[in-house]
Amino acid sequence: MKQFINDRGTVVSEAIDGIICTPEGRLGRLDGYPHIKVVVRTDWDKSRVSLISGGGSGHEPSHAGFVGEGMLTAAICGEIFSSPSVDAVLAGILAVTGKPGCLLIVKNYTGDRLNFGLAAERARALGYKVRMVVVGDDVALPSLPQPRGVAGTLFIHKIAGAMARAGADLDEIADAAERIAGQVVTLGMSLDTCTLPGLPKEERIGLDMAELGLGIHGEPGVEQVPYSTAKEAMNLLIDRLEPHAGPGSLVALINNLGGCTELEMSILTSTLMKSSLGGRIKELIGPSALMTSLDMKGFSVSLFSASGEDLTALRSSVIPTSWPGLKKAEKAEIIDIPEGLRPAKPVPSNNEKTKNLIVKCCRILSELEAELNSLDAKSGDGDTGSTLATAAKSLSSRLDQLPLADPPQLLRSIGQELSETMGGSSGVLMAIFFAASGDSLSGGGDITKALKNGLERIKQVGGAKPGDRTLIDALEPALEVLGQGLEDAAIAARKGADATAKITRAKAGRASYVSEENLAGYNDPGAEAVARLLEGLVPD
Amino acid sequence: MKQFINDRGTVVSEAIDGIICTPEGRLGRLDGYPHIKVVVRTDWDKSRVSLISGGGSGHEPSHAGFVGEGMLTAAICGEIFSSPSVDAVLAGILAVTGKPGCLLIVKNYTGDRLNFGLAAERARALGYKVRMVVVGDDVALPSLPQPRGVAGTLFIHKIAGAMARAGADLDEIADAAERIAGQVVTLGMSLDTCTLPGLPKEERIGLDMAELGLGIHGEPGVEQVPYSTAKEAMNLLIDRLEPHAGPGSLVALINNLGGCTELEMSILTSTLMKSSLGGRIKELIGPSALMTSLDMKGFSVSLFSASGEDLTALRSSVIPTSWPGLKKAEKAEIIDIPEGLRPAKPVPSNNEKTKNLIVKCCRILSELEAELNSLDAKSGDGDTGSTLATAAKSLSSRLDQLPLADPPQLLRSIGQELSETMGGSSGVLMAIFFAASGDSLSGGGDITKALKNGLERIKQVGGAKPGDRTLIDALEPALEVLGQGLEDAAIAARKGADATAKITRAKAGRASYVSEENLAGYNDPGAEAVARLLEGLVPD
Repeated sequence: MKQFINDRGTVVSEAIDGIICTPEGRLGRLDGYPHIKVVVRTDWDKSRVSLISGGGSGHEPSHAGFVGEGMLTAAICGEIFSSPSVDAVLAGILAVTGKPGCLLIVKNYTGDRLNFGLAAERARALGYKVRMVVVGDDVALPSLPQPRGVAGTLFIHKIAGAMARAGADLDEIADAAERIAGQVVTLGMSLDTCTLPGLPKEERIGLDMAELGLGIHGEPGVEQVPYSTAKEAMNLLIDRLEPHAGPGSLVALINNLGGCTELEMSILTSTLMKSSLGGRIKELIGPSALMTSLDMKGFSVSLFSASGEDLTALRSSVIPTSWPGLKKAEKAEIIDIPEGLRPAKPVPSNNEKTKNLIVKCCRILSELEAELNSLDAKSGDGDTGSTLATAAKSLSSRLDQLPLADPPQLLRSIGQELSETMGGSSGVLMAIFFAASGDSLSGGGDITKALKNGLERIKQVGGAKPGDRTLIDALEPALEVLGQGLEDAAIAARKGADATAKITRAKAGRASYVSEENLAGYNDPGAEAVARLLEGLVPD
Repeated sequence: MKQFINDRGTVVSEAIDGIICTPEGRLGRLDGYPHIKVVVRTDWDKSRVSLISGGGSGHEPSHAGFVGEGMLTAAICGEIFSSPSVDAVLAGILAVTGKPGCLLIVKNYTGDRLNFGLAAERARALGYKVRMVVVGDDVALPSLPQPRGVAGTLFIHKIAGAMARAGADLDEIADAAERIAGQVVTLGMSLDTCTLPGLPKEERIGLDMAELGLGIHGEPGVEQVPYSTAKEAMNLLIDRLEPHAGPGSLVALINNLGGCTELEMSILTSTLMKSSLGGRIKELIGPSALMTSLDMKGFSVSLFSASGEDLTALRSSVIPTSWPGLKKAEKAEIIDIPEGLRPAKPVPSNNEKTKNLIVKCCRILSELEAELNSLDAKSGDGDTGSTLATAAKSLSSRLDQLPLADPPQLLRSIGQELSETMGGSSGVLMAIFFAASGDSLSGGGDITKALKNGLERIKQVGGAKPGDRTLIDALEPALEVLGQGLEDAAIAARKGADATAKITRAKAGRASYVSEENLAGYNDPGAEAVARLLEGLVPD
């Protein structure tokens, strides 16, 4: 499995360097690579209780991503999925702990308990006040007396962080942390295993299966369950999780275990909120990657029956940007579609001269069907002639519904008609051409200026320039001289259309995907259509 | 490929529901499912220029994740990788645009240009002021006149957002957007393709290959290149990208295309900052998922030679939490390791009585080696006896270096010795037991109280309780009566140790993984060691 790493041995220290390369004066690390990998606040005066967490790496943004004002004071980073050493933890404690003492927030894994625990003893022997809270929020195995610590730990980081910032003393904070640790419950589910840096991936979970009740170290879940939809998966997870949750209103923390897309996380969130539990969830944290298991394609839901001061503490803003904030779950406003999406039907009117011009245009274009198709077959899918002929016939048949006596409205109406009958990119471009021309005409000026403005707009929207082998190569020179009369325009269009046969490197439109030799010697069908149309309109 | 979705047909609308389920009064959507999927600000009074972006979905958090004060006013969401319809765009424009007008920020794809372009015409025909900027920041194919719009678009969302909030007029904002669009450059690289919801994944990129210069719709990159490390990959990307970047200081935006872990993104960031380009990068946005391509395991780097007002606009805070902020790239502070990690060597001193006690303990434990190993083989790896014997022998040999006349220091020193000679979990637990006992003794009280405090601490750190089939089952009852004399303690320990033979469901330690029938009838080796030690110490 390929990964964006340089060396298995320096994965964690290089990642820390990436995290602290924008410290804004707030983050640093201890000078202890490779064994001591500790990220610390540098905007810190030890006048408050310090909060230290950590453990094995691979759970990013936990824990280094949560170091900063309002959350952790230091993060002790072990190797991937391996507890940091006693020395590393002790170094962190000594680096950031002042007279008010230090709370160690430890997820319930033997290695972390022991290494943080012994470091705490050593720090105490040196005269520091240290308490340690062990978090075991996982309810995957309800009978297990030592449940694992997983994403629910974030509740403690945040609430303890708010308390420490407010100046609470060590016992107040540690007691609150233990109370919360006793209330938060979490359950995870995954569709796939995770990939350890530089190692092959274990294929463990069948194609139609998911794992329920998994930890954050790639260990197998408590059971494999059939997987079909996000909804069934979420309902199963809720069935197992809800009995362990506290009463009343809940805060839900939705954690991406690493490999879910933002799209999936949003769908899971929507599914959770529409579930039987949704009504009890009054606040949400996430969906966000908070406590990951490398690239594991899974998620976890943590529930906490928070109230009062806990909610206030969860809601306060913090410096670490990895914290997504607490947001009230509410019904989103659903707003009526604005009126006027469909252009108002124009009031039909008559003008014989205009009608005859349109009829003539339509006839000319219809007669070109086979010839333009044949040209288009050289560079595209051979349907330019048919597309134009179909649109022309349809327009002819609807002449009595057009505002023939109102030139600006007429141009807009033709645009609307063409967008519906031509379809595809060319239909939209024609609609824009005529709509913009109509717009310009209603603002004053003659038809030449209006058509030029239309052309400018399709150049902007379509992104094509003269020389790109499109109809612009005939239309633009024709409009330049249209003021001098149709004959000059037709001559200019013809010259432009013929020049397209020499453009063998198309830069826009579908012809840009066709090889040069296939294009040489053939006019662009769009440019040819413009030239033939103008030639046909010149009075004999 | 399994995904957390419910129905391919409702992927986008369900995801939108997930995004707007915590609106905090700020977000809503138009009532136009399934065809019109438009997320809008609801804390919006149309008194400023509105900013609208969008396009196909699958790029989350773009664009709905960036709707909110300081960034977009509305996001028009198409189906996955498909442009939204003209009606959807027009609905969005009409819903949020007031007299100051509207800027459409469009990534350079034909479908988006056309649909947003025609919607703009329709809105203009209805009297709205609309401008459109087309972003093409991708430099994968430098000769392509119509480069794709990718992650660099975020610079425009952010700067235009700040300008609109400050009250700039439409032309000022649109001109700035066009200027920025002309300066921002982006290049992407990926190790794997992306997975369309509900469809199998295309395997296109070889095991040792990466794709350079890829878009955000799963289309192949401009070339496949050999892949070995993040560093080589980043250097190649920089070689191609840097020549297109503006002069002087740069802002770099580091975008996760969806499937990279946070660890990899941090390593890539660290690699970028250590590269030849690193010195020019003065500010960073990310690393963060900003413009993704579903689960594509890749990243992109965008560069913008920003200064003055642009930097101020990029730096201002916004409501959408998907925006990671602009942070100064700086050298992180590297702090010396605190002194005192290793406990000071104790000053040796002598006390014959204490020395004799320790010698006797060590001898007793050494003699139990074979017996305890045999007991441990029932529940563990059969080395309890050897571990204890080795530690005992080592301790005996170092008696002259111990502070035998200073009981608190002696306990701490014994803890330190055992943690080094026993190793593993039991070594750490013994270190904690003796360190905490020494601590307690130095605080006053007798040895019984001190040892009890040591026991409490290993119960907390190790997480074991009486009845869990550990040495606690002998040690706790013994300490309860130790004040009455060694004989009572030995009797209590023996009773406790023998009771462990009936505990067939171990709840802590390694024995918790062993089946019941293998444990029945055998004492826990740790508890047995405690009992035998105390029995051995009772005077004949």
